Amino acid sequence: MADKMNGLKRTHYCNDVRMDCVGQTVVVAGFVQKRRDLGNLAFLDLRDRTGIVQLAFDDASDRTVFDKATTCRAEFVLMAKGTVRERESKNPDLPTGDIEIFVDDLRVLSEAEVPPFEITDNTNVNEELRLKYRYLDLRRGEMQQSLFMRHKITKAARDYYDENGFIEIETPILIKSSPEGARDYLVPSRVHPGKFFALPQSPQQYKQLTMLAGFDRYMQIARCFRDEDLRADRQPEFTQIDLEMSFVDVDDVIEVNEGFVQYVFKKILDVDVQLPLRRIRYEEAMNRFGSDKPDTRFGLELTDLSDLLRNTEFKVFAGALETGSVRAINVKGGADKLSRKEIDKLVEFVKTYKAKGLAYTRWTADKATSSFEKFLSEEEVTALRARMNAEPGDVILVVADPSNAVVFDSLGALRCHLADKLGLIEDNSYDLLWVTDFPLFEYDEEEGRYAAKHHPFTAVADEDADKLLSDPVHCHAKAYDLILNGCELGGGSIRINDPEMQSKMFKALGFTEEQAQEQFGFLINAFKYGAPPHGGMAYGLDRLVMLMLGKPSIRDVIAFPKVQNASELMTQCPAEVDPKQLEELFIETVEKK
Amino acid sequence: MADKMNGLKRTHYCNDVRMDCVGQTVVVAGFVQKRRDLGNLAFLDLRDRTGIVQLAFDDASDRTVFDKATTCRAEFVLMAKGTVRERESKNPDLPTGDIEIFVDDLRVLSEAEVPPFEITDNTNVNEELRLKYRYLDLRRGEMQQSLFMRHKITKAARDYYDENGFIEIETPILIKSSPEGARDYLVPSRVHPGKFFALPQSPQQYKQLTMLAGFDRYMQIARCFRDEDLRADRQPEFTQIDLEMSFVDVDDVIEVNEGFVQYVFKKILDVDVQLPLRRIRYEEAMNRFGSDKPDTRFGLELTDLSDLLRNTEFKVFAGALETGSVRAINVKGGADKLSRKEIDKLVEFVKTYKAKGLAYTRWTADKATSSFEKFLSEEEVTALRARMNAEPGDVILVVADPSNAVVFDSLGALRCHLADKLGLIEDNSYDLLWVTDFPLFEYDEEEGRYAAKHHPFTAVADEDADKLLSDPVHCHAKAYDLILNGCELGGGSIRINDPEMQSKMFKALGFTEEQAQEQFGFLINAFKYGAPPHGGMAYGLDRLVMLMLGKPSIRDVIAFPKVQNASELMTQCPAEVDPKQLEELFIETVEKK
Repeated sequence: MADKMNGLKRTHYCNDVRMDCVGQTVVVAGFVQKRRDLGNLAFLDLRDRTGIVQLAFDDASDRTVFDKATTCRAEFVLMAKGTVRERESKNPDLPTGDIEIFVDDLRVLSEAEVPPFEITDNTNVNEELRLKYRYLDLRRGEMQQSLFMRHKITKAARDYYDENGFIEIETPILIKSSPEGARDYLVPSRVHPGKFFALPQSPQQYKQLTMLAGFDRYMQIARCFRDEDLRADRQPEFTQIDLEMSFVDVDDVIEVNEGFVQYVFKKILDVDVQLPLRRIRYEEAMNRFGSDKPDTRFGLELTDLSDLLRNTEFKVFAGALETGSVRAINVKGGADKLSRKEIDKLVEFVKTYKAKGLAYTRWTADKATSSFEKFLSEEEVTALRARMNAEPGDVILVVADPSNAVVFDSLGALRCHLADKLGLIEDNSYDLLWVTDFPLFEYDEEEGRYAAKHHPFTAVADEDADKLLSDPVHCHAKAYDLILNGCELGGGSIRINDPEMQSKMFKALGFTEEQAQEQFGFLINAFKYGAPPHGGMAYGLDRLVMLMLGKPSIRDVIAFPKVQNASELMTQCPAEVDPKQLEELFIETVEKK
Repeated sequence: MADKMNGLKRTHYCNDVRMDCVGQTVVVAGFVQKRRDLGNLAFLDLRDRTGIVQLAFDDASDRTVFDKATTCRAEFVLMAKGTVRERESKNPDLPTGDIEIFVDDLRVLSEAEVPPFEITDNTNVNEELRLKYRYLDLRRGEMQQSLFMRHKITKAARDYYDENGFIEIETPILIKSSPEGARDYLVPSRVHPGKFFALPQSPQQYKQLTMLAGFDRYMQIARCFRDEDLRADRQPEFTQIDLEMSFVDVDDVIEVNEGFVQYVFKKILDVDVQLPLRRIRYEEAMNRFGSDKPDTRFGLELTDLSDLLRNTEFKVFAGALETGSVRAINVKGGADKLSRKEIDKLVEFVKTYKAKGLAYTRWTADKATSSFEKFLSEEEVTALRARMNAEPGDVILVVADPSNAVVFDSLGALRCHLADKLGLIEDNSYDLLWVTDFPLFEYDEEEGRYAAKHHPFTAVADEDADKLLSDPVHCHAKAYDLILNGCELGGGSIRINDPEMQSKMFKALGFTEEQAQEQFGFLINAFKYGAPPHGGMAYGLDRLVMLMLGKPSIRDVIAFPKVQNASELMTQCPAEVDPKQLEELFIETVEKK
């Protein structure tokens, strides 16, 4: 049977017991990190959330306490009272390494079986086991640190937006399934047979309603849900810093959010962010970096060769140019670093982005070896090399494809891959920028129609308002994304506040008036009673924390994450339930065929 | 077509334009509260979240602006630029009543149809209409104020617990259905046919895991869910301030939470709460007030008459005493205020609490009229009157029932009813206290067995540990509730951290080892690897806000609440969904018979 605390109270966290406590009686509590026996001496490293302190025991001094200490193993839970004394042999690697606590009252509050893995930062344990025993994994200093930082970042967000006049309003989790609800989680209710709630993919409509309700500045740290097979770093439930403002245009939303970025980087990382942040228009981002979330910490920019090759007889390029483009990257001085074999690997790399191939010229000091120059005219080769600013030592990598999207995707990914491979990225650098002026629509291949790139409430750029119906493809949106090191931290837009403009938008999206009314009826009606101009933004909190802490996965900054197939390994859910429960919900399960 | 802001920026919120702005050019934005036309003058009251300011227009000065102003109606959304000037006739009822803005640039940013009800605090509109148009209802100053206060209270909670070393950790919303999951909302997932997540009724198990994980002090403002027909003031989703601490006993949890109560009352209401708060043991609370959430702002305490009537020949009392009790309240000086007719109404009142009747003695200056004294012996009457300290002018109200629960329920409710009726409760008084030492078990009539009064992880009082299996009925729990004005603000307990004790607890609850393992397996296993002593508490945030603001319903402090039958009137959910969605989830609905 375990000991009791019986009124004994902790006086210090482990890491707070230092030289200035020498001679004092202190009480600490925590988990045993390890035990060392040295003849008639024994030592226990005691760990709590702040760090580690050494407990010392002496056979000669108190046999009972000594004997109890030598029964303790890793992860036993202890409370210990003793006198702080300077150590004879100090441990410079430990913040409390100058002292130890000579214990006269030891309580074993909980014994522990040998854990399935050691609680230590340098762990090679596979993630599956760590997640199954998440409560043990979370004891590791690294995980503790991550979640403390997450708490601090979240708190910083709340403090900042509060100081800037935002009011946090909780919006419902049980809402109505939306028309774009293909990935909605549905929730039956025993009170309403045959009917369902949905879990929100974001509080978008509710936050707009808070603006119609006159709250002027809304924020919420909101849980959002998406029922889909997970991509590498997605979770079925995730957390957003969500905000919305009235009587604003693009610059106003950007300004207040740049302030947040500056505040949180200073507060958490002591990094000074210079404002204003750079802004790159979507088209420039695509043309130069092949991505709408460009990592601009290195060069390797894309160059468009299409105009030079307009009349080429090389069928691969000519075919690509009918509907797409030919673009290239110059890896300056890359001939030394990229062997033929390695270039072959790059060919395989771009194929995973649907490129059919990767043409190249590898120009060593001796000669240029090229997979494609022989198919071009001499003038074309000269023009191309000049455009690429190519010289001996360089490697030119070319993608040609009838789909511009494939050209951008593959070269965009290739330049990041190369930067990583060639070590072009400085450690601990934070590359923050805005991408603006997104296209308003994008073609949805599945549905065979144009869809809103952000969502159907996004406002069109003022200068494009006239061509919303006549030339939707060339309309830009008042939309903006915040990018950090090539990852999207967040994004938002100015919303449509004019019912007439909203009708046009639905029309451009191919909704009939009835469809629009059926799917967005209550929101459309709400706009009839006066709607301030408004816009907002949402950050992926999990990703923000992950990037700020330099973690490889969002699972490292979520206390109880789910794995790739959306299940949780610790509690084993989702799970089958009592048929009685389903009966009460008036639903039945159907076998998957 | 609406006007555009075109770069015009707000300089002031409405309520901030005061005498010190006279002569300045300001820009304000908001909703039209009302318009007054006075010949060649027109006035618009403009409302934003801070208050109201008067806009003035003069036909002679600028005809175009004047004409535009006179087209504005209530709830139009405007931006206005103008010069602040002192008013000729001031309005002392309005904080900005000394000034007005003489407008030279008026933008109608959004027109508005006539709203279904006027946006004003003194509204008689029925709640159903208000909820259907919640975005309009929320424009009312009263609702704005409530949600601002909710934000401030929530922020205060986060600040306080952060300053006291608590870390906010987000626990999952998609979890495993629990064995007490009769009221769990279930969530099917397209990735796992036939399996379900549940929405948490509270983060209980996860917060205990954060203690096993060594976080030491956890807090979260957590959304919780319960799928049931709603009682008067319940919501299917509600918000908890949830916390847990390691290496603590009852006093430690109480201390840190008293600190919070003091902090939040001072910060939000400028009310000084004296600490420590009073504590009443559960049994005393029941005996004196007939309730485990006693309102002690007034007397009308219960008196037990059972011992005096042990040998009575009055069958009603004698029958009650076999298994129950006879208890009474003395309404001092109540004979004047409670007529026979009114006492008859009280009889009906207690019947709604399952009492079979209410015996009374009404003792006026002239004589005592009694419904029951004639059935008692003279000695019994004398003893009873003496025990009740009865004298001319008093009314004695007696409930006798074979169920003590019925006696307590009915008299407990009756005393609150009487206090309200007789005006015994001081306005704006805050009566805060702890109820402690709850019974560990209560008899579950439905299931025909003892159930945990709090939950199966609640620790037994140290002095009762030995009789957990031999005499469970008389075991007390290390559980405590915080009461404000007769309402439960929150509650919690110290948890079991000893696997051996936990096994005993499951045994006492009638679980076999297999059942316990099946239902709580992962948690039971978790405790094997070292578990600090821990305990915690949870507050109902909605109710806390409601009580602090003196609102009659939690719907008044929730932005988008659901109604009694758990549906939301604004978006009309839950709703039927596309059969395709159900197909993808591998479920079918079943007709309710």
